[in-house]
Formats: sequence, structure tokens, C-alpha cells
Amino acid sequence: MKHIHYSDAEAQHFDGNTVKGVTGRIVIGKADKATNFCMRTFTIEPGGFTPKHSHDWEHEIFIHQGQGLLLKDQKYVTVTPGDVIFIPGNEEHQFKNDGETPLTFVCLIPKGAPEL
Amino acid sequence: MKHIHYSDAEAQHFDGNTVKGVTGRIVIGKADKATNFCMRTFTIEPGGFTPKHSHDWEHEIFIHQGQGLLLKDQKYVTVTPGDVIFIPGNEEHQFKNDGETPLTFVCLIPKGAPEL
Repeated sequence: MKHIHYSDAEAQHFDGNTVKGVTGRIVIGKADKATNFCMRTFTIEPGGFTPKHSHDWEHEIFIHQGQGLLLKDQKYVTVTPGDVIFIPGNEEHQFKNDGETPLTFVCLIPKGAPEL
Repeated sequence: MKHIHYSDAEAQHFDGNTVKGVTGRIVIGKADKATNFCMRTFTIEPGGFTPKHSHDWEHEIFIHQGQGLLLKDQKYVTVTPGDVIFIPGNEEHQFKNDGETPLTFVCLIPKGAPEL
């Protein structure tokens, strides 16, 4: 059994033209012999955003802390703690942090998708 | 894309000899055409507990709110928000709420396991 705080997992920082102020962590993955699906966490700083993109695998997401905006069906909708989002494959999506504190969420992907 | 608050999903309440004060919800599952893995949430009231058991599928868990105890390798360890737990198949586990507020966590399982 593995038991950590998500912030103790190795952090990867993403900043560029299409992504800003994002920290990603693989918290349960292949290295843990979790072979069916992978749990990552993402923290977006205020003003930051993830890429606007789509891909052929799904996301299962749970919002832990903060508030933000989610691109859903071409519109941005507000997300807050306790929100659950299922993004099927090939649906465009993006998260932005329009709040004043970090936005942290859990995002799971099936085996075969890139872990981060 | 599905977007709900977890508390808006149908609740199932569990109380008996081996489980007390537990509310479970399937928040992303087969009904959503999520065919690879299933997201559930569980809320344990203060003094409540989940069954002490094991089974052949794994859990990927994220603690959202509250505090509690987790049976890990025959001992109870404290869990708090932001904690991540990977329970491989066939490892005994149990959660108890020893705090004063509800303990809420996300628990994911692979396809083929009972959704709740």
C-alpha cells in the first residue's frame, strides 16, 4: 500500500505559449504497479491555464481546492471544490484559474495514455 | 462532457455490523460510458467506518475533506486532505472517521469490479 501527500510526489512545471503556471504530478502510476489507470494531480496558479486541446483518451477529474474555469462545449463554466468532470476522448477541454488561490484537481487517465 | 458536484449524484447509505455512517456515490461510471475505470466518492460521518476487507481489485484514493484513520499493514495511520493512497488488490484496508467533521474521499476502481 502506498500512502503519500500529493505534494510529496515529484513535480513537473509547465510554462509556455499554450500552458502557464501549471504543476503536474504522477501520484499513482506504472512505477507503483498501477497498471489499469493512472492518478495525477495538477495545480494551476492564479492566472494560469492548461493547454486547450483534445486527445483520444478520457479524463476523470475531481476538483480539490480553489476555483477556476473549464472549457466545456465551447463555453467556459465555473468549477469549485467537489466538482466532478468526465471528459470523454476527443472532446476539447481547458482549465484556467480565475481565482486568487491555487486551483488543484485530480485527473485520472486509462492505461496506454502518457502519464504526464 | 459530464460536470456535476459529487453531492448531486445518487447517494447510497451503508449501516450495519461491519459498516457505519458511510454514504457512497458513483460519480463517473458505466452509465456515463466510462468503460475503463469508475470514480466513486465516499463520505464517512464522525465515528463511522468502512468494512475491514480485501478484494482482488485495486483502489486509487484521494482524501478531499476531513480526517480519519486508514488500516495499512495491520496498523491505523492518519489521513488528511491531499493524501493519496494506492491499495493493490488483496490488501486488507479500512477507513474510520476519528474527526469531528465528515471525511470525504474519492475512490477509483478498474472495470469489472462492482461499481458500489
